[in-house]
Amino acid sequence: MPLNPQRTVDELRELQQLTGDDNGAQRVAWTETWERARVWLRERFEGVPVVEEIDEAGNQWFTLGEGRENALLIGGHIDSVPNGGWLDGCLNVLAGVEVVRRLAERGAPPVPVRLVNWADEEGARFGRSLFGSSAAAGSMSDHADLAMLKDRDGVGLPDAVGAYGVDLGKTLDAQDQLAGAGAYLELHIEQGPVLESLDLPLGVVLGTFGVQRWRLIWKGQAAHAGSTPMDKRRDALAGAAKFALALREIAAEIGGGAVMTSGGVVCKPGIVTSVVETAEQLLDMRHLDAAELARMLGLARAAADRFAAEENIDVTWEQIWQIEPILFDDTLIGFADEAIHEVAGVSHKLPSGPLHDAAEVSRAGVPTVMVFVQSLRGLSHTKLEDTKDEHLRQSVEVLDRLADRTLAWLAAR
Amino acid sequence: MPLNPQRTVDELRELQQLTGDDNGAQRVAWTETWERARVWLRERFEGVPVVEEIDEAGNQWFTLGEGRENALLIGGHIDSVPNGGWLDGCLNVLAGVEVVRRLAERGAPPVPVRLVNWADEEGARFGRSLFGSSAAAGSMSDHADLAMLKDRDGVGLPDAVGAYGVDLGKTLDAQDQLAGAGAYLELHIEQGPVLESLDLPLGVVLGTFGVQRWRLIWKGQAAHAGSTPMDKRRDALAGAAKFALALREIAAEIGGGAVMTSGGVVCKPGIVTSVVETAEQLLDMRHLDAAELARMLGLARAAADRFAAEENIDVTWEQIWQIEPILFDDTLIGFADEAIHEVAGVSHKLPSGPLHDAAEVSRAGVPTVMVFVQSLRGLSHTKLEDTKDEHLRQSVEVLDRLADRTLAWLAAR
Repeated sequence: MPLNPQRTVDELRELQQLTGDDNGAQRVAWTETWERARVWLRERFEGVPVVEEIDEAGNQWFTLGEGRENALLIGGHIDSVPNGGWLDGCLNVLAGVEVVRRLAERGAPPVPVRLVNWADEEGARFGRSLFGSSAAAGSMSDHADLAMLKDRDGVGLPDAVGAYGVDLGKTLDAQDQLAGAGAYLELHIEQGPVLESLDLPLGVVLGTFGVQRWRLIWKGQAAHAGSTPMDKRRDALAGAAKFALALREIAAEIGGGAVMTSGGVVCKPGIVTSVVETAEQLLDMRHLDAAELARMLGLARAAADRFAAEENIDVTWEQIWQIEPILFDDTLIGFADEAIHEVAGVSHKLPSGPLHDAAEVSRAGVPTVMVFVQSLRGLSHTKLEDTKDEHLRQSVEVLDRLADRTLAWLAAR
Repeated sequence: MPLNPQRTVDELRELQQLTGDDNGAQRVAWTETWERARVWLRERFEGVPVVEEIDEAGNQWFTLGEGRENALLIGGHIDSVPNGGWLDGCLNVLAGVEVVRRLAERGAPPVPVRLVNWADEEGARFGRSLFGSSAAAGSMSDHADLAMLKDRDGVGLPDAVGAYGVDLGKTLDAQDQLAGAGAYLELHIEQGPVLESLDLPLGVVLGTFGVQRWRLIWKGQAAHAGSTPMDKRRDALAGAAKFALALREIAAEIGGGAVMTSGGVVCKPGIVTSVVETAEQLLDMRHLDAAELARMLGLARAAADRFAAEENIDVTWEQIWQIEPILFDDTLIGFADEAIHEVAGVSHKLPSGPLHDAAEVSRAGVPTVMVFVQSLRGLSHTKLEDTKDEHLRQSVEVLDRLADRTLAWLAAR
């Protein structure tokens, strides 16, 4: 049976019928709809000699061949955000299903081939993304925090995952799954506008951005909007406004795909009759190069200090989160680039702004690469998320050719 | 008995002892503490031949002489915000008490002299300021809205005012109090930094600013902070930031004391990982000249349109509230200016940014003027509010001399 990319497109539509509604995909992890998707996924392998296993972190594995040593891993996540798109996460899984089914036709592979459906990539219910992959990678270290998380109905995370056989205290045992693995491949929609703006169907991902997330606290002086002359004000919002506008200049100076975002400003007292006393401003900065990311932070701090001085206000920084850039494997990047050239005639290399399970696997030391397929209008996490059928079929072909090249490479090692 | 300005300062301290605590003044209207202040105020007139009356809106009147025709009115408000200052509102009332006591020594005045303690100037409990004075001025027209207001404990305004003998349906009957009145005088702390910055104790107020209050809705496109290149963003916060910074330029261009304030921006989705889709921005603009206020609005609208075009986002305007400038009486402004010159050697004319009960009285057609006394650091509505004792004493003297001039003017008409 040859590869049938259209079957993947059909199965994506079938999954959406089964687990979506008029508002979009509803496969939130640790829910009945998500479980229905896992059962349905299992059924895709009817008659295919794979062995299924659900690990200690809730990840669903299908293995073709024996053992785990030097295995070729293909991964994705079937969970979605509420009212999500029909492709985010499950495209990777279903394209992998098709590739594994095609490989199974050839008999026993030279190294084990394993498809993984990572548990709770989105973190939609409890706010903790990359749950399953971070457990398998051994980077999950926030068990005490996780034990305290509750969903909006007050259900605790330990109970919610427990209902699906996961013991929060044992999730790190899932690390066994990655021990000795040979390579990890992940296909994903871009969730951004770059490939569409270049009119390209596919691109190879160089790695995931390093991220610096901060909260800036601008502190001025509340003052009556009617009685305080303009030149006597210490307006916290002025600092935040200047900073929001400076981000684009800093990002342009850094270049190399640098992105800087102020996702919000919370003003206090926040009433129409008062100059803003306190403005709490969110900042997100990303770059693929750790040194450049550090330089961005330096420039941002200098700009904030300058604005604070100009406005006679104070600014302090609180770190929310950070992660180093994660660079994918050069050999696998080459393989992916070749596969894309073969299928689409032209390739492109780009960084990933969002994190993905692939970042966790790469951090664990497994040679990793990702392929992006074009997202229409760059939209994701909405039912408006879409990709042309033709591009979806091409993406399955690319994953298949990439898998073949990687198998040969692993077999020869 | 001659005027005793120090007695006013002493009585202000006594009132703070009686009705304040470590956090400041607590004379919120329609509370037991406010009522205690009203009773205490009554006691200031022991042995003085004034007649007390509480009108249909809860305003407390003390009349020296017969009737109301051609009366000289002196007014203030003894209510405060929670954790308020020791001067805002009650300085006017207690200075008026001292002036009335001094006038009473001279026997029957040529026209009635009436001190009014306006009810609920601050609107601290229900969010509706100038309650008593707007009723007496006949400008209160929001009875249906008032009937629905609740305090944070769920008590409705009609019940709260009813507990102090006020029937919400009859508040406009208080208009009788202003019918035929001859003049209205009000002394108040500046609640701003202008007099202090000029090193002047006192100033005469030209009128209250016209106010335009708007909410601007900036609408862009939510987009992933990691995957959306800087040049592909439609960032609603960028529009709000540019606008916040443009306000100071517009105010400088208009001049004449123009003030423009953005008191807050609410960002949606307001999360660290997304470009801002919607930014709701508060705008408050004030000027003493109606034409200049209209010009400010025009410049602000043009700037907003320009920023929306630059950022490829949309902007719409929703009006929150407006009031025309209210100019005080030229003759009374002259009297106040003379009185300040006599007491302090130097005077200054300035507009009032905040509204005051005087604006309502003036709107009702009664010749009106206000005098401002310096506020230290311009602070108000906080226990840090303060004015030097020397300046307080001078302010009582000014009100006294202003009352004498006005009495002579009214008697001669």
